[in-house]
Amino acid sequence: MEIIDPTDRTKVMRYRERGRYDRATVNAIIDEALICHVGFDVSGQPYVIPTTHARIDRHLYLHGSVGNRMLRNMKAAIPVCVTMTLLDGLVLARSGMHHSMNYRSAVILGVAREVTEAAEKSAALDALVNHVVRGRTADIRPPHALEIKSTTVLRLPIEEASAKVREGPPIDDEEDYALRCWAGVLPLTLRPGHPIDDPRLPPGVLVPRSVTGYTRVVQSESDITT
Amino acid sequence: MEIIDPTDRTKVMRYRERGRYDRATVNAIIDEALICHVGFDVSGQPYVIPTTHARIDRHLYLHGSVGNRMLRNMKAAIPVCVTMTLLDGLVLARSGMHHSMNYRSAVILGVAREVTEAAEKSAALDALVNHVVRGRTADIRPPHALEIKSTTVLRLPIEEASAKVREGPPIDDEEDYALRCWAGVLPLTLRPGHPIDDPRLPPGVLVPRSVTGYTRVVQSESDITT
Repeated sequence: MEIIDPTDRTKVMRYRERGRYDRATVNAIIDEALICHVGFDVSGQPYVIPTTHARIDRHLYLHGSVGNRMLRNMKAAIPVCVTMTLLDGLVLARSGMHHSMNYRSAVILGVAREVTEAAEKSAALDALVNHVVRGRTADIRPPHALEIKSTTVLRLPIEEASAKVREGPPIDDEEDYALRCWAGVLPLTLRPGHPIDDPRLPPGVLVPRSVTGYTRVVQSESDITT
Repeated sequence: MEIIDPTDRTKVMRYRERGRYDRATVNAIIDEALICHVGFDVSGQPYVIPTTHARIDRHLYLHGSVGNRMLRNMKAAIPVCVTMTLLDGLVLARSGMHHSMNYRSAVILGVAREVTEAAEKSAALDALVNHVVRGRTADIRPPHALEIKSTTVLRLPIEEASAKVREGPPIDDEEDYALRCWAGVLPLTLRPGHPIDDPRLPPGVLVPRSVTGYTRVVQSESDITT
């Protein structure tokens, strides 16, 4: 099991027992999360923007239009924080103080830089699509050269990173367990509904298996090998 | 309809048509989101931390232990950005470029300050619990004085804020509509599973209706009146 050494900035300080520093756990959270929240600073004001991401091995990729304010700022190699959070349930205790949530979160700190090399940029753009629906690039038309040119791709090394995981029932004060108050966990899952055909879909085009059998629990090769 | 005047910092620049500046839309996103991501800066490094929140009228409340690094920093009146994101679906287009997501997000910029007044602090702590499960405080034991003392509550005015909403089918390049590639929307919903009793629950304590009938779509009084 590979450990990502925690730094003063990534070591979990509150609820230390929830800290996870193995790369497999961090990778699994990154890969399951559909979106991340990117934090960056512009003129002393923090911004937190939701966006999509993809991982290839030990790098996280983000993308956007060349005009995008976040990416324009990040291209100057500004420090960023990228956070993924998966909500697994509500932890309902016998006191307000011990209410909590079950979750898995990953935090990556670092400096994102623009990807300029063509092969890496293409691989990252494919990964960004396939991160959302596995194998999706095989079903759609390939990108035009102009589309690739007008998209900025950024790479952030997954080097300074940690995860935080809470699971299980509420932990109440000992004297509260006798109360006749319901306590427990209400599990939460992000679930797909029925696919909605595009109104302009030609007749007879069927929903592919990647969409009908959609699930977020991914077991990627690199999870297994790293 | 009350409009929150956009500033240079909250005006939606990319996909301007997705910008929403009415307070009812911003409030509805804040109220439905179970968690937010708080961005703040420590020594030039941005941090993005998931946490729970609650709204009372025109203020957002955050809380945590007095020892919490984020709250310790925020108490010094540091500028923050709080972002809530609700994922509504995957937008699967005929090209990678036009893949997107349907979502509703809210961004609040401002300076959070500690709540010291006892009545406001109590109301905020109750709101933080009831934000997660409506009416929950009526079912649990009231907080002890020491619990209130050991919890820091912060208040952020919802004054500089905006929302961004994408909905509907993919928008493809005109020439791609003829492709025999499936395109459409896969809706996503955060759904509750079956409540799991705490292993130490006394026999005969039933799951309350607030948990068995759990839903995130809230129609609060202040949504209607503001």
